Amino acid sequence: MPTDSERLDIGGVIFAGVDQSDFTGPFEVLSRLPGSTFHVLAKEKRALRDVHGLILTPEEAFSDAPKLDVLVVPGGPGQEALMEDDLTLSFIRSQAANARFVFSVCTGALLCGAAGLLRGVRATTHWSAIHLLPYFGAIPVDARVAEHGKMVSAAGVTAGLDGALRLAALLCGDRIAQQIQLAIQYAPSPPFACGTPGTASPEVLEDANRAVREITEARLATAIRVAARLGIDLPAGEKRS
Amino acid sequence: MPTDSERLDIGGVIFAGVDQSDFTGPFEVLSRLPGSTFHVLAKEKRALRDVHGLILTPEEAFSDAPKLDVLVVPGGPGQEALMEDDLTLSFIRSQAANARFVFSVCTGALLCGAAGLLRGVRATTHWSAIHLLPYFGAIPVDARVAEHGKMVSAAGVTAGLDGALRLAALLCGDRIAQQIQLAIQYAPSPPFACGTPGTASPEVLEDANRAVREITEARLATAIRVAARLGIDLPAGEKRS
Repeated sequence: MPTDSERLDIGGVIFAGVDQSDFTGPFEVLSRLPGSTFHVLAKEKRALRDVHGLILTPEEAFSDAPKLDVLVVPGGPGQEALMEDDLTLSFIRSQAANARFVFSVCTGALLCGAAGLLRGVRATTHWSAIHLLPYFGAIPVDARVAEHGKMVSAAGVTAGLDGALRLAALLCGDRIAQQIQLAIQYAPSPPFACGTPGTASPEVLEDANRAVREITEARLATAIRVAARLGIDLPAGEKRS
Repeated sequence: MPTDSERLDIGGVIFAGVDQSDFTGPFEVLSRLPGSTFHVLAKEKRALRDVHGLILTPEEAFSDAPKLDVLVVPGGPGQEALMEDDLTLSFIRSQAANARFVFSVCTGALLCGAAGLLRGVRATTHWSAIHLLPYFGAIPVDARVAEHGKMVSAAGVTAGLDGALRLAALLCGDRIAQQIQLAIQYAPSPPFACGTPGTASPEVLEDANRAVREITEARLATAIRVAARLGIDLPAGEKRS
């Protein structure tokens, strides 16, 4: 059994329009860590819906959250509405200051960026948003999981599982992480080899790009504003508002 | 856009003690199918908790569910309490009679078995429960995803993603399934090679076996009773109550 000093308070943020797997993948892994408590957190303690309609219910409002050892920030289209939301950004910033790790999944990285956590940090996000990372001062890494200091970031949606297992190993050691991986029988066997833009067929990539065009344009416009607020020097050739 | 005849009603069952990923993995994939409605169903229309405490909320009670094209049956320790529950088993049985596909994830296969759906059917389940499948008349298959007639079964927990993508292809074709796989960036990269009993180290397998010993013994006792009720001839050497 872990001693008191080894107890872990892990907090996962949810919001309307979150992509539920960005959250539930990490929950599956991190809620199994010995001696840990997983806090399901939202701006307000009220049920909400993920981007495809699944009802999720937070247990605590941000204002009632303890000091967290690990902060999990998922993404999904609903992230856009929070990119300039003071309460959300200051919650992320203040928890991050004390946390051992901040773990972003998918476009949760953009929220961490808007909170100012990614300046000079190597990070990843969903393939459709990785070109936006420099607007937050981040160094984009084309990896499934990126680690830099206390920041752990996972690529799109399902990468949250890979990142959470990596984080489990960082927190509790390889043996615990491996036990969890076996318990959830994580020996993936995708039916197709098309999970990244580089491996999908041109037709499938075009379909997928079309599906995210609108949200990606909105994210760019927001990123430009956030960069100005943060005083980020954009790379040459990047748009300035 | 799909025509009316192509509309899909997909229903996913949740229950107290479900392993949420068994449900949320398939939800992530199947809720994205064009022209589909995903119904979150439970015995009663009341919020419940997954095995690690996540609050899940059904939208409809079994009695209000439409005739489903696809029935998704997840597992998790809470499946045990439903193995002799008439209302649950008759719901699964009656929906399965009309459905195009029944999709079990993890120990959801045991529930399908208790409902009588697995007689003579090649099926898979979580590694810790695969020895129980013959008690339901099933032919155990050591595969990530097994298909036999209208029954699609996935192995433990995370196999629900692989199975759901396979099911997406069966329902809507490879291109749609591939677009979803790219959208959720499913190019998995597990940190360890230990997701099955055959690949885990002996120490990790021993830890994992210890963790499931109690529930596995309970499942065996239940399976023996169910086999007697279903009139299943057990394989030589299998225990009879």
